[in-house]
Amino acid sequence: MQKNIDPAPTTLPTGPPLAADPNAPDDLAAFKHAFRRHAAGVAAITTLAPDGTPVGFTATSLASLSAVPPLATFNMARSASSWAAMAVADRVVIHMLGAHNRAVAEKLAGPHAERFTGDHWRPGPYGLPVLTDVTSWMVGRIVERLPVHNNAVVVVQIEGGGMGADDEALLYHERSYRVPGASV
Amino acid sequence: MQKNIDPAPTTLPTGPPLAADPNAPDDLAAFKHAFRRHAAGVAAITTLAPDGTPVGFTATSLASLSAVPPLATFNMARSASSWAAMAVADRVVIHMLGAHNRAVAEKLAGPHAERFTGDHWRPGPYGLPVLTDVTSWMVGRIVERLPVHNNAVVVVQIEGGGMGADDEALLYHERSYRVPGASV
Repeated sequence: MQKNIDPAPTTLPTGPPLAADPNAPDDLAAFKHAFRRHAAGVAAITTLAPDGTPVGFTATSLASLSAVPPLATFNMARSASSWAAMAVADRVVIHMLGAHNRAVAEKLAGPHAERFTGDHWRPGPYGLPVLTDVTSWMVGRIVERLPVHNNAVVVVQIEGGGMGADDEALLYHERSYRVPGASV
Repeated sequence: MQKNIDPAPTTLPTGPPLAADPNAPDDLAAFKHAFRRHAAGVAAITTLAPDGTPVGFTATSLASLSAVPPLATFNMARSASSWAAMAVADRVVIHMLGAHNRAVAEKLAGPHAERFTGDHWRPGPYGLPVLTDVTSWMVGRIVERLPVHNNAVVVVQIEGGGMGADDEALLYHERSYRVPGASV
């Protein structure tokens, strides 16, 4: 009954070695193995820098925290190109991406200077950049920024939003973009 | 180009009304609409209560925070049955669930007293409950608990873990369990 599980806290599995990093320490190896087997929805977070420049990034860490009040969280590195703006912003826009937003997901994960070149966004509430043709978006106020090492957990209280056309949800899993498949 | 997006911060879409809560305020409606269109991977978090009783729950909020050091986050209500234990625990086990763990996902989202009745778990590192036959699990130390209203964001530093048999990742989307489908 326990054949697939190793009880020792730092003993790693007999499964395939980590291709990218065969000499990773046990804690990192466990982390990478586990998250490789986890699927995540894809969101995009945008805001304005103090000088009015739009900034943003593709996030697989978006999560619900509570419905009443409506709170969501996302995680980011404080070394990320968007952090300087996120560190001081009052509000952000959180977009849920669908299958037809794959190009936008890649654009907002690409070179910082090119993320808002194009007609895939427009100014929305508070002048914040709203991505067009997403399946849904929410605007909210940042209510907490929790620094942890060189990262931050950001908590957003949702104030409103809008919906786009229906579409399949965009997933990121095993380094590729997917859509939800069969029910189990 | 903007036909599907409404720029006003609290104006809701012309899409279908909220079936469950047609009179929800704008902030809650936006939140519900958006998260309905977001897919999430399914994890299970376990720990021990101070008296040694295993506790845990099914989570769709698990997210990576950083790889070096390996950090993960999850969110929970402080009204949840597992919170009393999570509030004081040193360590937790985070399990990634696969398609064949659907029954375990439902069990750990069901009545609190029945979540650990059965042979789907065993004591692992530090005596913590480890679910058997999951695709992967990690044991880690709780390094932050951020209270936000009646909820908490919990940050875990991963210390080790193990892998089970390969399986499709378990997703939760549109109130049903799914597996990842086609690449897009």
